[in-house]
Amino acid sequence: MVKQVRAARTRQALIRAAAEAFAHDGYARASLPAISRRAGVSAGALHFHFPSKDALAGEIESTAARTVEEMTGSCRALDGSALGELVAAIRRLVVALAADPVMRAGFTLGGDPARDGGATVLDSWHGWVREVVFRAQEDGELADGLSADCVAGAVVAATVGFEVLGSRERDWLPKERMVEFWTCLLPRLATVPCGAPDPVRDAGPTGDRGPESSLAGR
Amino acid sequence: MVKQVRAARTRQALIRAAAEAFAHDGYARASLPAISRRAGVSAGALHFHFPSKDALAGEIESTAARTVEEMTGSCRALDGSALGELVAAIRRLVVALAADPVMRAGFTLGGDPARDGGATVLDSWHGWVREVVFRAQEDGELADGLSADCVAGAVVAATVGFEVLGSRERDWLPKERMVEFWTCLLPRLATVPCGAPDPVRDAGPTGDRGPESSLAGR
Repeated sequence: MVKQVRAARTRQALIRAAAEAFAHDGYARASLPAISRRAGVSAGALHFHFPSKDALAGEIESTAARTVEEMTGSCRALDGSALGELVAAIRRLVVALAADPVMRAGFTLGGDPARDGGATVLDSWHGWVREVVFRAQEDGELADGLSADCVAGAVVAATVGFEVLGSRERDWLPKERMVEFWTCLLPRLATVPCGAPDPVRDAGPTGDRGPESSLAGR
Repeated sequence: MVKQVRAARTRQALIRAAAEAFAHDGYARASLPAISRRAGVSAGALHFHFPSKDALAGEIESTAARTVEEMTGSCRALDGSALGELVAAIRRLVVALAADPVMRAGFTLGGDPARDGGATVLDSWHGWVREVVFRAQEDGELADGLSADCVAGAVVAATVGFEVLGSRERDWLPKERMVEFWTCLLPRLATVPCGAPDPVRDAGPTGDRGPESSLAGR
């Protein structure tokens, strides 16, 4: 029993150490000896739990993907709006990314060109974001002419970009800023019908003219 | 003379081949033999022009950074608005990224954890975006309470995210979608004062209530 508990602790220490190494150094540079040193366990113990770097990364990716699924599954906006639900999920995601190296590694591995098939976490996140944005569109929360695909794509791209840039340069921009941005922005996506007027070709950015927000009325 | 022309052609072929390799395989995986093969030149010719992979990447990064500076320097919105200028620059950037592997590599190297000091292009892009967004704020184009830093950060993060995801998965989302998104979105950042009301904690997302757009009046 004691042995099982110790084995579980060692495994967790290895996963955490590997996550920190992958998120900080990238997949290509993170070495198994450095990971076992960081975890304070022997190389033998590492190989007992994880036969390869790929196995460690796979474990981190699936753990982070599960966290994303649990997190998004439990997000409900008090006002029942889909865009509100998305903002709630982004808030939670940012907290989870700040607190959990496994989540950070999950997202950075997804954008790491040295890592094959590391997109599990991004797929979970992107899948959920698309679903909720399409729901927003069905519920009339999105402006006409604004593609749900492009909103979902931009949310996911920004999430990944913040994580990739943040992992290179700590506090590149505090992630709270991303929350601030989406909290401020998402409700605006419904303010006016969007024929994507071109502020450059047109006389001026007239994208703001139009009926009042359909959200504001709710 | 003929010799100089041939040398210049070889150099260009090497830069292009390296850019394609870095953007597609990442810095860690791209190998010099594969790059010289791709360029159709000998390993000796590669080493004559570039002593190392680092030298090749550095050349690509500074070339892409110059392109970004020329591109942003020549962007002017017809209506003279700063946000319009940003939309114009994003349109141009997306075209340049689609057309030029050196630009793609410049941005992906900036987010590649295996590449040190590869942030030259991102720094140029981020620096210009911040400058134009702060100008928008000074000109009253940004809603009160909306931080220029967070708008600039989100634009840069999304640019990098689109590029990183796109390089892993061709046509992850057509980049035209990013243009569509920002064209649609940026004019909305001025529509209402933004105290970043919380659509989750609040009764509902009321961020849309407020005075009419200051842009719309221009």
